[in-house]
Amino acid sequence: MQVFDVDDPADPRVDDFRDLSTSDRRPDRPGGRGLVIAEGVVVVRRLLASAYPVRAVLGVRRRIEELADDLATLDAPVYAAPADVMATVVGFHLNRGVLAVADRAVPTDLDELVSSARRLAVLEGVGDHENLGALFRNAAALGVDGVLIGPGCGDPLYRRSVRVSMGHVLAVPFAPVEPWPQALKWLRDKGFRVLALTPAADAVPLADVGRDGRLALLLGSEGPGLTAEAIAAADTAVRIPMAISVDSLNVATAAAVAFYALAPVDR
Amino acid sequence: MQVFDVDDPADPRVDDFRDLSTSDRRPDRPGGRGLVIAEGVVVVRRLLASAYPVRAVLGVRRRIEELADDLATLDAPVYAAPADVMATVVGFHLNRGVLAVADRAVPTDLDELVSSARRLAVLEGVGDHENLGALFRNAAALGVDGVLIGPGCGDPLYRRSVRVSMGHVLAVPFAPVEPWPQALKWLRDKGFRVLALTPAADAVPLADVGRDGRLALLLGSEGPGLTAEAIAAADTAVRIPMAISVDSLNVATAAAVAFYALAPVDR
Repeated sequence: MQVFDVDDPADPRVDDFRDLSTSDRRPDRPGGRGLVIAEGVVVVRRLLASAYPVRAVLGVRRRIEELADDLATLDAPVYAAPADVMATVVGFHLNRGVLAVADRAVPTDLDELVSSARRLAVLEGVGDHENLGALFRNAAALGVDGVLIGPGCGDPLYRRSVRVSMGHVLAVPFAPVEPWPQALKWLRDKGFRVLALTPAADAVPLADVGRDGRLALLLGSEGPGLTAEAIAAADTAVRIPMAISVDSLNVATAAAVAFYALAPVDR
Repeated sequence: MQVFDVDDPADPRVDDFRDLSTSDRRPDRPGGRGLVIAEGVVVVRRLLASAYPVRAVLGVRRRIEELADDLATLDAPVYAAPADVMATVVGFHLNRGVLAVADRAVPTDLDELVSSARRLAVLEGVGDHENLGALFRNAAALGVDGVLIGPGCGDPLYRRSVRVSMGHVLAVPFAPVEPWPQALKWLRDKGFRVLALTPAADAVPLADVGRDGRLALLLGSEGPGLTAEAIAAADTAVRIPMAISVDSLNVATAAAVAFYALAPVDR
């Protein structure tokens, strides 16, 4: 591993890392390239192990040394900079001390993803990037094979989502689905039971739906929930039994409970 | 309901709401009174419905009107202020438009809490206030009767915790426990099975521990997890089956999965 020192914040070699708080608001920036940004040792490590083509790594010397094994075979430049130079480049103080940027990988093929999956999450209107990231973390932990991104969702590769997912969004396959909600009919034709998670009192308790076969769990945004059209296009509305005084769980938390409850019996 | 207009940010009647971002860092301020602060219509509503003695409400006119039914029987002043005056008083822009402050209620009696409970959460080293708040929200939703606060935990009534809990921390009884970990032995003597949640591979999968009788779920912080002493003082170490590549779930999320999995059969 060769490490290049960067002492001048204006150094053009670290342009990929410049003004992240601005590019954070527009994840398809700069120049429409939509860079994937990993922060911190744990997430950088997951990016390096992923299919995403890493463009560069920038960190303080200590963090780069911590990642030496992971960086050994990297075919991209590694830049070491003092913390204050990094802060000036990035535009804010980073307490994680290391960043990596990658290009977006070739999108996952929807048919391929669906044909090999036993458990899918299907999202409608999950716009909050922290919820999205947490949902991917939970999906990875609890054996979900892929995530289908319906209308109104945020970008799973947005910086905040990547961070909250602990980098697991870089490992769980995902793909957009359309048209909506007709795609749910298509999923059912592929052999999936589509279960719409809702707090509605007349929905079937999770424990009563059975865990056989292929399941797709349909999840909506925390406030308005799933649209009536999406629920109608599902096989069954299901619910987590909850105290009457509590309206709902956070969507990523509800997803975790459901992923657990619906995991294949052999897993 | 009588509403008092406040047009001067220096008005001493709204001193309880002053410089919240500073008092946020020190929840026992100002003057050691340890005020409980609720933000937003939903959380203020839960504070008004709780046992906490409300001292005052401050909001923009529209939010106060939204809360008119809840405020009808309140025996404390309600102040209406323009958004910019509120921002100056509070010290930052509030996008939720309404706040309420209360004194801490009389602490819950530990013996009373434990004697009537079927499900308890017991926390060790959960210092992160967002995790703490999320944990209370999940406990409220999933039928946990009380939370015992062991060593190294944050303050459940800290402003950020109250907010993330969606105000449910004001409804779920909690109490500190000590000495540690001897208190776990005391809980077992009270008839609780104490289950220590850990990612350790040799722990018993949640689905195999049984849901009979009284259960206390012992939860540690996300990074280091439970201390060996706490695990040794529990009846059984239990785990959520997880993908090998994923180290752990967020502690509040793991708690939600376990609360669900261990809920009494009749609930």
